[in-house]
This record gives sequence, structure tokens and C-alpha cells, in this order.
Amino acid sequence: MNKTQNECQALLFDVFGTLVNWRSSITRGLQTFFADKPALLHQQSLPDWEAIALDWRALYQPSMQAVRDGSREFVILDTLHRESLVITLEKHGISALPDAALDELTMLWHRLDPWPDVSAGLYRLRTRYTLAAVSNGNTQLLKDLARYADLPWHVSLGAEPARAYKPTARTYQYSAAMLALDPTQCMMVAAHNEDLQAARELGFRTAYINRPSEYGHRQTTDMRPESDWDYCAQSLEELADLLNVQN
Amino acid sequence: MNKTQNECQALLFDVFGTLVNWRSSITRGLQTFFADKPALLHQQSLPDWEAIALDWRALYQPSMQAVRDGSREFVILDTLHRESLVITLEKHGISALPDAALDELTMLWHRLDPWPDVSAGLYRLRTRYTLAAVSNGNTQLLKDLARYADLPWHVSLGAEPARAYKPTARTYQYSAAMLALDPTQCMMVAAHNEDLQAARELGFRTAYINRPSEYGHRQTTDMRPESDWDYCAQSLEELADLLNVQN
Repeated sequence: MNKTQNECQALLFDVFGTLVNWRSSITRGLQTFFADKPALLHQQSLPDWEAIALDWRALYQPSMQAVRDGSREFVILDTLHRESLVITLEKHGISALPDAALDELTMLWHRLDPWPDVSAGLYRLRTRYTLAAVSNGNTQLLKDLARYADLPWHVSLGAEPARAYKPTARTYQYSAAMLALDPTQCMMVAAHNEDLQAARELGFRTAYINRPSEYGHRQTTDMRPESDWDYCAQSLEELADLLNVQN
Repeated sequence: MNKTQNECQALLFDVFGTLVNWRSSITRGLQTFFADKPALLHQQSLPDWEAIALDWRALYQPSMQAVRDGSREFVILDTLHRESLVITLEKHGISALPDAALDELTMLWHRLDPWPDVSAGLYRLRTRYTLAAVSNGNTQLLKDLARYADLPWHVSLGAEPARAYKPTARTYQYSAAMLALDPTQCMMVAAHNEDLQAARELGFRTAYINRPSEYGHRQTTDMRPESDWDYCAQSLEELADLLNVQN
């Protein structure tokens, strides 16, 4: 047996929340977009852009549910983001936006700022491990984020190639298969307990990264590790320390 | 219209021959593998390892033909490489290798040395363009090469996700679709005129990289650009110069 057969070979990363701060980026993006288009708002007072960002994201899990339960054919996350945007804006009194505006706003999810530790942490982890994006984001979105946030993937996998949304088993299993690795040779890295739980049930190793401000000061979930994950860290730099990857 | 609509956004790279020197790497890999297993050879004199590497590669295009013409379902390149290996070794009087040996030799294609200009050239081009692997290699192979040869892809595409081998149109078209770009916004970069011709016919831009020693001193094809490709260069560094990407 190959001596590395039982070692962890690849780190599989969740992206939204774990690596990038979607909340502040989407809030700022909405604000900037409407700043020079006040006519689109049809209202006197400015909306609470962060509330809109949070409401938009709140539709993220529900929007994937029909695909997960098989009642809808797989569509990419850009499509779901756009549908959720329309619902969110209507709730906040913003309606009848032109298609081009909806398209442009949907693309805000392709330009999200990384948390401060991410780029340095990934480059450090990259000296030892294969780095794979295993996100629900579509391939184009992941490519755009890789470029915008400098995420040095060896390979970009996740929902679109697997045609299944996490935490559906297929997303994880397809990713491991593409790497030709056994789940035990892969570690899922995420800021979300549910993501890690699904991976663990399939035999993957797990690393929890604490991002207690992902949802802002109103955050109530994923404030801490809710199980005995293999590793728990406050940042990718700390994860690299725990894995004894040289600085 | 977006101001970047007509600009080149992404460079799509061929890999074998264009970025990595498969000939010297496979030759050395075969030599090293058999050096401590002389019993597997059943022969007095040592084989010509470079001849075996060249013969193995000579079956590359024919091996994909059945998939291209639809008479065989898509199988990944690792599978084709292994089948071609058996044929090649038999031709050179090496037969009845154990499965584990054939598996290990097939994986030689996952560890190929880059040409000397490649890593620096890619990191430089990466500051301006999206870099995508558009190779006939399978996803695992491309991931292993990315790690071994330090190829900093933003995204890894090509034959396996498209389930079609270049120069079939679908491989190029699927890759552009995954990038959400029009072919005119993408440039295929390759050391092979045929690859560029197929891409050009679909509307892609083209850059020819001259690799006149890919096949060694007996090379007779792809010694020079055979059409007026958009760019022709001796190295990725020269391509970056021609594209005015800062050093």
C-alpha cells in the first residue's frame, strides 16, 4: 500500500462565509449600484442595504431545496440568486427593475472580499495539500472569485460539475471521485456545522473555521463548532499551524 | 455594452507539449520505474525508453478517435493512456506486467516537468487574464499537474467536464460556456496548429507557442506556425511581452 494512502491529501473548501465575506461585499455592492440610479428606487428614504443583503442570502438555502429534493432540474446558483433577488427587492419595495440591472446585481456574488487571513492561509496550505473549491457556486462564479479574491485553487469542483447542491451526498462524493481520492484522504473545510456533518457522514475529515460575524451582529447559528470536528480554528492561518504546515 | 465586451478576457491553455515536456518526463519515469524492477523486463538489453515514450504518445490521438467519432462512450484520458501503454510495451517486448505496475506507469502522466518559461509566464499572465486549463487530460490529471508543475489555474476545464476530446468543437464551446464568455473573448494557447485551427473556426482567438523539441530531434510536425495566428511566441514570457503584460 502506498505510504500516503491514509494521509490527508486534499483540502475541500466551502467558499461563501468560509473564505469570503459576502455580507459586507453584497451590502456595499447594492449601495454602490443604486447610488447613481436613485430613480430605480421609487422611494424617499434609502433602504437598509445590509438587511437586503441578509434577506437575499436568507433565500439561499430554500432556493436550492427544489433541486435537492428532485422536484426541479439542476440550475446553476446564478439562476437561483437572480430569482431570490427579485423576491428580496420586492419585499423591500423595489420592483420592476430592468433585466440588465437584475443581471448586474446577480453578478455581485462574483466579486466578494476574502476574510483577511484567507489568501495567505491558502498559499501556505497549498504547499502541502491539493486545494479544491467545493462550493455551491457555479463554475463561472468560482473562477471569478478565484481571480477577484486570489484563491489559488488546484481545481474547482462543487455543485455545478456534480449537478447537486450540498449537503446532498453526491456533491462531496463526486468531488472526491474527481480527485481520485477516498473521502478519508480529503478534509472538508467550512464555517458551517451542517456542511461538515454531511461530509463526516460520508467519511470525510472535517475542519471548522470560526466565522462568527458572517451574518453580522445578529448571527445566531454557526457561532461555534457543534461537534468534535477533526480541527477547529479561528482562521486558515491557525488551521495551517494546527496541520504543522510551515509558515 | 460593457467596455470589456470585445476584449480578450481569458487564456485557454493546451497542456501536454505546450506547458509540460512529457517526452523527457515520461522517458525518465519509465527508466526510473524499471531500474529497480529488472525482473519485469524479461530481456537482456535495456529498452530505448525515449522510443517507448514516443510510441506511447503516438497512440494518444488514435486512442481518442473512437470517442470523437461516437463509436465509444467518453472515457477519461487515464483509461486511454493505460490501454495505449499495454500496446506500446508489448511492441517493445515487455508484457504481462502486473496491474499495479500498469497503474503506476499510467500515473507518470500526472507528473510532468514544465518547460522553463511556464511557471513565471503563467503567474505574469494571471495578473491580467483568467487562466483556464483546456486540455484533453482528465480533471485529476490536471489537478496533479497543477500541483506538480505549479500551474496557477483559475479554473480547470477541458475534456472531462465537456465529455469530448479536442479538436471536437464541444470541448472548446463548453469551456467558453463555463466561463460565460463568447469565443471572441477567449484565446486558445497551444503549441499545435491543429488545436488552434479548431478553436479559430469557432471564433476563438489564437496564440501559438513554439515547442520544436516537444518530440525530440526527430520532430517533424508543429515546427512552426502554419497559419497567421493572432500571436506567435517562443515562450509564455514572450507571449506576455506581446500582450503588454507588465513583468
